[in-house]
Amino acid sequence: MLQLSKFPIKTLKSAPKVSDNRSTSLLLQAWFIRQEMAWAYNYLPFWLKVLRKIESIVREEMNSLWAQEILMPALWSKEHWEQTGRWDKVDVLFKLPASTGKEYALNPTHEELVTPLLWEFIQSYKDLEFWVYQIQNKFRNEKRAKSWLLRGREFLMKDLYSFHKSEETLLVYYEEVKASYKRVFDRLWLWNDTYETIAWWWDFTTLNSHEYQTILGIWEDNIYICNECNTSHNEEVVDSSIWFVCFKCKSKNHRIEKASEVWNIFPLMTKFTDSFDVKYTDSDWKAKEVYMWCYGIGISRLVWVIAEYFMDEKGLVWPEHIAPATHYIIVMWDNLDKAITLSKKLEADWKEVIIDDREKVWFGQKASDADLLGIPYRIVLSDKTLEAWWYELKSRLSDETQIIAL
Amino acid sequence: MLQLSKFPIKTLKSAPKVSDNRSTSLLLQAWFIRQEMAWAYNYLPFWLKVLRKIESIVREEMNSLWAQEILMPALWSKEHWEQTGRWDKVDVLFKLPASTGKEYALNPTHEELVTPLLWEFIQSYKDLEFWVYQIQNKFRNEKRAKSWLLRGREFLMKDLYSFHKSEETLLVYYEEVKASYKRVFDRLWLWNDTYETIAWWWDFTTLNSHEYQTILGIWEDNIYICNECNTSHNEEVVDSSIWFVCFKCKSKNHRIEKASEVWNIFPLMTKFTDSFDVKYTDSDWKAKEVYMWCYGIGISRLVWVIAEYFMDEKGLVWPEHIAPATHYIIVMWDNLDKAITLSKKLEADWKEVIIDDREKVWFGQKASDADLLGIPYRIVLSDKTLEAWWYELKSRLSDETQIIAL
Repeated sequence: MLQLSKFPIKTLKSAPKVSDNRSTSLLLQAWFIRQEMAWAYNYLPFWLKVLRKIESIVREEMNSLWAQEILMPALWSKEHWEQTGRWDKVDVLFKLPASTGKEYALNPTHEELVTPLLWEFIQSYKDLEFWVYQIQNKFRNEKRAKSWLLRGREFLMKDLYSFHKSEETLLVYYEEVKASYKRVFDRLWLWNDTYETIAWWWDFTTLNSHEYQTILGIWEDNIYICNECNTSHNEEVVDSSIWFVCFKCKSKNHRIEKASEVWNIFPLMTKFTDSFDVKYTDSDWKAKEVYMWCYGIGISRLVWVIAEYFMDEKGLVWPEHIAPATHYIIVMWDNLDKAITLSKKLEADWKEVIIDDREKVWFGQKASDADLLGIPYRIVLSDKTLEAWWYELKSRLSDETQIIAL
Repeated sequence: MLQLSKFPIKTLKSAPKVSDNRSTSLLLQAWFIRQEMAWAYNYLPFWLKVLRKIESIVREEMNSLWAQEILMPALWSKEHWEQTGRWDKVDVLFKLPASTGKEYALNPTHEELVTPLLWEFIQSYKDLEFWVYQIQNKFRNEKRAKSWLLRGREFLMKDLYSFHKSEETLLVYYEEVKASYKRVFDRLWLWNDTYETIAWWWDFTTLNSHEYQTILGIWEDNIYICNECNTSHNEEVVDSSIWFVCFKCKSKNHRIEKASEVWNIFPLMTKFTDSFDVKYTDSDWKAKEVYMWCYGIGISRLVWVIAEYFMDEKGLVWPEHIAPATHYIIVMWDNLDKAITLSKKLEADWKEVIIDDREKVWFGQKASDADLLGIPYRIVLSDKTLEAWWYELKSRLSDETQIIAL
């Protein structure tokens, strides 16, 4: 139970204008985030609650794959990054001079850590396959300035790394990961508008890289979706100088949608295991190469994607299971005691409650804040209704109110 | 439920020698951590489970103070750090050149963020007092190399910041925070050997800074405890050129203990609120200064402190409620099905289970690994006992086994 009077929460009278999207404006107006410096956001309590709930869903699905959760450092040695040839190649790598005279990387990704870490555990074919994941802040030394939340200098990622005996077993596992990712995006109510999209980023593999793009109607990427077989293509793989041809069914019939990348899959193959000389001894006693894949989900990005995807004209809209709270109780006059009693009852039923007991804030302001914040259910406690032993319950998505007996 | 066969866990045959403490050796041997670079630790699954449980206890107690949880960035602007005069003063500050041509701080502490962030919310006396906290990775550009876990370049901290109308109201709140901290350390079973210790670090206050030190018998600080009134003093405030005199009761009778700092309190007073010109309008319409205090708990440090504090000759020992698991089931021969059935029963009762179903690992190795890992209860399932419908339960801290009917 969160009593708004205990904290000087001030929603803004109007949504500040930020570049090209409305959800960031709403998140600023509704007191989810504050920006004091370009590309760096302070997460206020409501944002953090949504973030942690999405994180829990991702963690549950990773655990259901029997993936082990670990946590690797944010700082890493130049030597490891040089060993893979990426110290001077990754242009978003932050390089940090230390008082020891050394330089460190502030990691944008963790292949340079996870590969030598797991080297110790991979000896025989019996040790393979396995997979680990972490949920950790990543850092990117971005040049392009953007005012909104999509591409920040630091952000929370889930990254899963899998290690395999061969390309074949890797592809079997890949299907399992895809199924678990589908469950994540189903649970976040995004799956219906999310497309597996063909993309290439890497020069060391001929396999397709995939990313998953959720259609948002605002810019990050244009995706080309085949109208015949529904295969989606990132703009980067489409040669715009010629007619679009679907990679899969060769149809030219397509549509273009604006979308945001929500997860990606990198077929790392043996690039990193070779760099660190990770081999396994097979049952025929021969030393063989270890195949590796990496699968990411942008967790802090998802908070924003969900905000953008579900918002309406009145403000933010959160699915009930990831909302900052399920119920928003508007207290007018002296009903705080009754609000607390009701909150405790709701909490015993696993609900979460915000009590708006701010003084000298009118009913209209409280009601519009409840809508702006996107809390699924709004309860009004007034003297009049309490005398008659009922209160008013309204769902965020409907205009009708229900009468509930106390 | 964690099946060890699903992951190539390899405890080490013997504890690697690291500088001056045994717990880090045990944590390495028992597969809690791995070190690939000086001062940077990879957290493996067992460590991470303990860390998250301690984090939950701290979060619960902070929430019980009605403190709001927020999360601030790790990167911050040079300008903010210059505004408080600390850009060139804090010698552990990592300074990060970015591709934009700017320099950023990688924050070791967050006064330069929380003060301007909350400036927006502090206007009238009615907005005060309030407090926020975060649980976040801190970074320190340390010169001194240490091989063990106590002083790393990155570590997880809980930092609470409180904002007050006056020194008097600040001191009232301080007693509430102390009570909540006592509950945290009670719940971690450390309170009996933890001392409020007088210390000074800062030049802008004449109030005592406090730190809390847990007696460990190995080095970080020497504390001087008065035998008459039990007041503890950090070595740094004791003039070792003269006789020790207790600050409180003036007695010379004392003992010296080796201890580790587990929490600290900084009376920031108006240093930071003045730097950012944060003032409030009082009921008399005068602009007044805002008083601020900061209270820290080193969460990742606590994992190590607890390991060091409770370990015995057989290995690690974890209090049941923060252990990586409550039960360690040793499976010999073909009893995995029965182990899984029993695990599910235990999990329905909120227990957590590690199933040691590793192949070709002898009973003796599994039993000593159960002890080394410090799991509170060990269960042995063998064909012989299962035929007679019982299994063997042993507590980590006793040598006697109990017979439990299936």
